[in-house]
Amino acid sequence: MPVDLSVACVVGVDYGTLSGRAVVVRVADGAELGSAVHDYSHAVLTEALPDGTPLGHDWALQVPSDYVDVLKYAVPAALYAAGVDPAHVIGVGTDFTACTMVPTLADGTPLSELPEWSSRPHAYVKLWKHHAAQPQADRINELAAKRGEPWLARYGGLISSEWEFAKGLQLLEEDPAAYAATARWVEAADWIVWQLTGSYVRNACTAGYKGIRQEGQYPSAEFLKELNPAFENFVADKVEQPIGQLGNSAGTLTAQAAAWTGLPEGIAVAVGNVDAHVTSAAAKALDPGQMVAIMGTSTCHVMNGDEVREVPGMCGVVDGGIVAGLWGYEAGQSGVGDIFGHYVANLGAEWTHERLTSLAAQQKPGQHGLIALDWHNGNRSVLVDAELSGLLVGETLATKPADIYRALIEATAFGTRKIVETFGEAGVPVREFIAAGGLLKNELLMQIYADVLNMPLSLIGSDQGPALGSAIHAAAAAGAYPDVRAAAAAMGRVERSVYRPDPASAAIYDELYAEYSALHDYFGRGANRVMRKLRAIQRKVSA
Amino acid sequence: MPVDLSVACVVGVDYGTLSGRAVVVRVADGAELGSAVHDYSHAVLTEALPDGTPLGHDWALQVPSDYVDVLKYAVPAALYAAGVDPAHVIGVGTDFTACTMVPTLADGTPLSELPEWSSRPHAYVKLWKHHAAQPQADRINELAAKRGEPWLARYGGLISSEWEFAKGLQLLEEDPAAYAATARWVEAADWIVWQLTGSYVRNACTAGYKGIRQEGQYPSAEFLKELNPAFENFVADKVEQPIGQLGNSAGTLTAQAAAWTGLPEGIAVAVGNVDAHVTSAAAKALDPGQMVAIMGTSTCHVMNGDEVREVPGMCGVVDGGIVAGLWGYEAGQSGVGDIFGHYVANLGAEWTHERLTSLAAQQKPGQHGLIALDWHNGNRSVLVDAELSGLLVGETLATKPADIYRALIEATAFGTRKIVETFGEAGVPVREFIAAGGLLKNELLMQIYADVLNMPLSLIGSDQGPALGSAIHAAAAAGAYPDVRAAAAAMGRVERSVYRPDPASAAIYDELYAEYSALHDYFGRGANRVMRKLRAIQRKVSA
Repeated sequence: MPVDLSVACVVGVDYGTLSGRAVVVRVADGAELGSAVHDYSHAVLTEALPDGTPLGHDWALQVPSDYVDVLKYAVPAALYAAGVDPAHVIGVGTDFTACTMVPTLADGTPLSELPEWSSRPHAYVKLWKHHAAQPQADRINELAAKRGEPWLARYGGLISSEWEFAKGLQLLEEDPAAYAATARWVEAADWIVWQLTGSYVRNACTAGYKGIRQEGQYPSAEFLKELNPAFENFVADKVEQPIGQLGNSAGTLTAQAAAWTGLPEGIAVAVGNVDAHVTSAAAKALDPGQMVAIMGTSTCHVMNGDEVREVPGMCGVVDGGIVAGLWGYEAGQSGVGDIFGHYVANLGAEWTHERLTSLAAQQKPGQHGLIALDWHNGNRSVLVDAELSGLLVGETLATKPADIYRALIEATAFGTRKIVETFGEAGVPVREFIAAGGLLKNELLMQIYADVLNMPLSLIGSDQGPALGSAIHAAAAAGAYPDVRAAAAAMGRVERSVYRPDPASAAIYDELYAEYSALHDYFGRGANRVMRKLRAIQRKVSA
Repeated sequence: MPVDLSVACVVGVDYGTLSGRAVVVRVADGAELGSAVHDYSHAVLTEALPDGTPLGHDWALQVPSDYVDVLKYAVPAALYAAGVDPAHVIGVGTDFTACTMVPTLADGTPLSELPEWSSRPHAYVKLWKHHAAQPQADRINELAAKRGEPWLARYGGLISSEWEFAKGLQLLEEDPAAYAATARWVEAADWIVWQLTGSYVRNACTAGYKGIRQEGQYPSAEFLKELNPAFENFVADKVEQPIGQLGNSAGTLTAQAAAWTGLPEGIAVAVGNVDAHVTSAAAKALDPGQMVAIMGTSTCHVMNGDEVREVPGMCGVVDGGIVAGLWGYEAGQSGVGDIFGHYVANLGAEWTHERLTSLAAQQKPGQHGLIALDWHNGNRSVLVDAELSGLLVGETLATKPADIYRALIEATAFGTRKIVETFGEAGVPVREFIAAGGLLKNELLMQIYADVLNMPLSLIGSDQGPALGSAIHAAAAAGAYPDVRAAAAAMGRVERSVYRPDPASAAIYDELYAEYSALHDYFGRGANRVMRKLRAIQRKVSA
């Protein structure tokens, strides 16, 4: 069926941590015609299950029916808001938080939906920020290093407790019966596509970044057996599944999903994807060297490369992890907006982001005499050390709150520069920096990033980048364009070089960055282990 | 005239930065019978002279008549408040901020009181915190080091911009006419005694600590000539004067001073003194090894020793500088209460010292996971570097204001321990630690100091320690006791070992102090000069 581009639309659905957003997008030019958001009724379970069963420290669960509710409520509402005839919708695409894991029966039914499992915490979805599998992650890393597993370097030398294997091993070791009942260990990104199409296709992105799939292989049965004899067949029994490339069709919309969404039965459904990674398409940033930074409470950096390189401390490099045919690199800063938010929350009611930003904007670079390290939530790249913590140097009796606020913004910019330089030194040069996400609205912050990076900053042209990116993938999956790159070229939106570096500011920031780097290495690379020691003392006296 | 101890009283007058306090004290037992405070009408001149003549950056001047007003108003009011017959007062003693310098004619008339000089900033009193003579101080230090002047080590290797020679050289170089008109360059501590007695006696304390008088000699004419040829005769012409030992009589009360104060003409007036140094007598802490810490916005440490030793980074060691016959040592922390005050001032109105202290008191040592360096106002001892600044390490997204507040208190305690240990290592062991000053009221802070120092803390038994100390010196000067030690034994007040270290807390603080020391040396001794660099950048961009 030829596509009538003049009226064709696609729907992108972005699954976030607390809500799902549906956007209706015109295929011809990517115009966003309408959108709607549905909040998850159960939000994030951190203290107890819905029936009151208590949860341990660092747990974070979700309820799968909340995801289906987004299909039932947000998609029809977005269609209504757009004023679009549902018959003109030719495809749907989704993106999800990751790594978020659903334990299911062989038919995809979540374990938590069975009455006999509804009081068992391990039957529920483990959200990306479930951090209770750290002991398992530590063992995975130790053993992988000891055995010299070749995949370890593809993840900057460290497998996260957030990922599939650590969470799966925790499931096995803490609730063997739930593990046995889990026929499939499914990324939520794929589970939602399974609900839309009736068939289970595993996407190349999460399989690589979160599932440790490299060169078509997962970690070996020997490795898994050495971790725990009962874990030996984890991959073969619960993880392995045919791989779908990003932007391909995973299948077509079932009658049931059509009834939920109000969309036509049989339209294309794109292979599942991840929020950060689809944003590259939305920002037209799929060429090697175009780094997209999705800047919010934390920042995720994604960029394509022609070749595979081992970048120290990156989150991962995956073949086709962002777009088929290129190597997708990912890095991250674990605290960005969260650091500013925490600072403001501690100040008290008369201080707001707006007031601090306005005061900080009146300063010249270097005027406050401060420098900070942005490790309040640990360091994800390039040091990959959750035990690191924040640092502020230079405070005097004349220091004002806006000084510290600006220093914290600058610290996150220095952290970004450290990532950009590390990529460059590893042979994966960053040629363009494109900002996306909520922090893009802060003009002071954007100018500081341009000055610190000494690069022009391009901005994504949408404030719902992931949903637009999913819609672009839907258009490709529906065949409206030959591939994701072509779809992104027509439907993505970017404003080039919106913020340009000021040479005088860049020169001062070069001096300050040299100091940041010295502190970064001194506290981050083992010369002074005070941050680790302080956490150890804290744990000892709190025990 | 034999003293009738049953009714005899003395008056102590403590000249602070913004006001003067008079206290009437019973000679027999040191009971404080009444007191009164008079605020200086002109406070501190930092922006302009009274006639509007503008002042430069870092200037801080005072008006001498404000000091006389304290005699006129506070002394009679204190007598009235005490309900004491003035006829029973047998002596008066004073202490002053230092180094505070008055340029006078040969008869003691301040230059600023002459109409022809009243619009000249250099004709006024240069208060201790006048910091505009830093360039002169830098040259004095450079030249003294180059020439190997033996007195330099008696000041921890550094002469302060606050002291007599730096301020005198600034006077010469910036207003040679005022310098020429200055017959005498007088410590305010001695000027006020001159007003009381009609004769000029120079006290051994400020002559040593602030006037670089060692072994009876001031810096040589050759040295002064090399600084500036016109400065060659500075000592001979303007500084040299017979020395009075502390607690001796400088003379007797003149008729005019008796009229001002309501005190009997002819009673003894003690040799001038300094606020911190008289406090040792008030706290009965005149034996070698008894360190008195006067803890307020900053902290001053004074202690006697049997011998002269060169303690790295001390403020000074002076023969008879605290009590005749012993070597008086002085050290200091340039920011203590000021650091807490600055932290609270930057928080919103809902935060107070009381609330933060109450929350911080609920924690165990080490629980907050933080460590700070207490250099927000530079470091006076043992590093003697005004370019240093504050540092906070360990902040996370879970850190609360009370955590930081407690860490700042601990940082000042670690700073005190560093001074105590430095004295011990130099052969001047600290055997008892006696706290005085406003911070003594904070029980949490006192317990933290006891735990960090791992020593019992004694407390002075008066909240007007300097005035009581001056009264004790008055009693000695009047002959009521054979010397200051005997007067202090009868009239001073101390509570021994009020706070005792908790062994478990002390053990944790030993671990944290090791981390503090590593940071102290790394940032303070040149390995990482980021603090200096940040100030240099700050000055460059603000210029």
